[in-house]
Amino acid sequence: MKRSFIREILESIDSETISFAGGLPDESLFPVQELKKASEKVFENPKNLQYTISNGITPLREKIADFYNKEGFDTTASNILITTGSQQGLYIIAKYFQNTQIVIEEPSYLGAVNIFKMNGLDMKPIVLDNDGIDTKKFDEAYKNAKLAYLIPDFQNPKGSLYSREKREEVARSVSKHGGYILEDAPYSELYFEQKSKSISSQIPDNSFHLGSFSKTLAPSLRIGWIRANEDIIRQLTMIKETIDLHSCGIAQHILDNYLQESSRYENHLKCLRDTYKAKMEIFIKALNNHLPDFDFEIPKGGMFIFGSLKGVDSFDLVQKCMKEKVVYVPANQFYLDERVNDEIRFNFTYTAENEVQEGLKRINRAYLQGGR
Amino acid sequence: MKRSFIREILESIDSETISFAGGLPDESLFPVQELKKASEKVFENPKNLQYTISNGITPLREKIADFYNKEGFDTTASNILITTGSQQGLYIIAKYFQNTQIVIEEPSYLGAVNIFKMNGLDMKPIVLDNDGIDTKKFDEAYKNAKLAYLIPDFQNPKGSLYSREKREEVARSVSKHGGYILEDAPYSELYFEQKSKSISSQIPDNSFHLGSFSKTLAPSLRIGWIRANEDIIRQLTMIKETIDLHSCGIAQHILDNYLQESSRYENHLKCLRDTYKAKMEIFIKALNNHLPDFDFEIPKGGMFIFGSLKGVDSFDLVQKCMKEKVVYVPANQFYLDERVNDEIRFNFTYTAENEVQEGLKRINRAYLQGGR
Repeated sequence: MKRSFIREILESIDSETISFAGGLPDESLFPVQELKKASEKVFENPKNLQYTISNGITPLREKIADFYNKEGFDTTASNILITTGSQQGLYIIAKYFQNTQIVIEEPSYLGAVNIFKMNGLDMKPIVLDNDGIDTKKFDEAYKNAKLAYLIPDFQNPKGSLYSREKREEVARSVSKHGGYILEDAPYSELYFEQKSKSISSQIPDNSFHLGSFSKTLAPSLRIGWIRANEDIIRQLTMIKETIDLHSCGIAQHILDNYLQESSRYENHLKCLRDTYKAKMEIFIKALNNHLPDFDFEIPKGGMFIFGSLKGVDSFDLVQKCMKEKVVYVPANQFYLDERVNDEIRFNFTYTAENEVQEGLKRINRAYLQGGR
Repeated sequence: MKRSFIREILESIDSETISFAGGLPDESLFPVQELKKASEKVFENPKNLQYTISNGITPLREKIADFYNKEGFDTTASNILITTGSQQGLYIIAKYFQNTQIVIEEPSYLGAVNIFKMNGLDMKPIVLDNDGIDTKKFDEAYKNAKLAYLIPDFQNPKGSLYSREKREEVARSVSKHGGYILEDAPYSELYFEQKSKSISSQIPDNSFHLGSFSKTLAPSLRIGWIRANEDIIRQLTMIKETIDLHSCGIAQHILDNYLQESSRYENHLKCLRDTYKAKMEIFIKALNNHLPDFDFEIPKGGMFIFGSLKGVDSFDLVQKCMKEKVVYVPANQFYLDERVNDEIRFNFTYTAENEVQEGLKRINRAYLQGGR
């Protein structure tokens, strides 16, 4: 198995390197004081330090269920399985479906691709456009696979957002052929305009909707969840408890305390959206100024700007960039065949404005040295 | 796959039921104030809330390595992989060795058996005596499998402790045939007399030594680790990061802060050993008084008393006990073939003295109703 190039970069870069590589949130936005307060309460009851149930503590599952109910997507705590990040959610589902076929978007999230490989899933890639997957090709492939992995909101790496029509078409394919979709939704709350209706809400019994607090609160909590029908959640819980008995209880209780004031989280999300939108605009301005040959679509949310430097091998270029002390993720990492390719994924949420300017100047220097 | 009967019991019992079932620590001994203090420091640095490296934060791995060094077992941070409880450590190793053979003790830990099944490991059970595995039969089976899962210290469920001779014989078999052992050591610090030398320390490159803070500090931290040779740790890290990227960072930082004063943890362990020894003696006295037909060995550490009610189907009896509002784990759960069996595992660490008395009286009542 190939290691995640992104995680290799994350682990090897020094303090002088400017990183547009990882999908990292802005650390200055972590609500540290409020999480600290929430954590203090955890230690008031020793029972919070004991083993707990495998599907996750009930009050937290209830609060997550309420996120869905507020959007008109009927959900109870029994529809929710707490996982160690949505990464583990994907792993558990892949284990459940092991050695079958799965339709994926191309490009797609490398962490998911590695999970699918590890569990013997035969991946059928379908091209992803800026308004979502090619739905004709999707229907053709889904007919056989009856399983698909999609990131409809601000996709990783493409930043693309499915149109309403494409959401409906995907849901129709699933209804027609049976089977399931895995709808990975870690960026869904990070919209700049408005929230899109999930595909899962249209096919509640034929979907796994994966959520996470990693992009919206703090990654190190490592708390995500799966929303699925109750029967399947019961089966996934058996896999979950075999893997690690249950996810960190302390992190679950911290979150549960934090979410007790619902306006607190909502206000935090508003602040995140505004700040990330401003950071995206700064990044785009800097791209236009310092890397004018980069061709991209303006994202409507999420954490990434995706585009291309025409004719450049972006994997080759990143090696030169590393010497210039700046990194991004070259898009060959997101294709199953790792084809040579001129596309680049930039993360715009992690770095400060001065780093964005300086980092993009360095990339342009490496790019121009390449003979262009 | 069969769900853990133990976890089913844990999730279904009501507040009036006295439970000798789970391997639960005494909640009154959790060092809540000190863990609270340690947790406050975590939120002083927002970087602690960010994604971290997959093998676990370096200072914590260094401190764990020092546990080994103090016992003369040379270890560095590169030999350690932090996992979500030692349960996940087992899962990762089983994934690494999937679809091969493995020698196990019989009876053995059901959570491990489920992991082995899920990863296609063909289990070869060898009878476990009170001073360890039958080493002749072990050598015979190990010769082919070249992989074994052992719990030498205060085994779950048997409470047995390997003699020095049997430890050496097992190490000799491994040296002779090559291959590996998985030495599961969650109870090793809970000795009542003296600490035994691990088998792994005699075969450092051919062993996985699994440790955990779940039995010694707090289960809900969900932090355990694997000690193995550096090359293998690198390969296991790739599996680990595919499963969940990394274990809860907040729990890792809490632990790291807590362990910064090394005497604090050592004093806590001393207190645990003294208290659990006293609780064991209370339990034994109560057994002799209230369930005089129960035949057992006195454990030298750990959390369990294992024995038999001659001629009784202990699985049948526990159904009656549940109606009397008391539970234990019937030993058929710990045998691959779930054979009808008169053995019982009692946990003695969780319950208070009055519950022990009352619980054992209730079991005796159910037992006598059974016609004995």
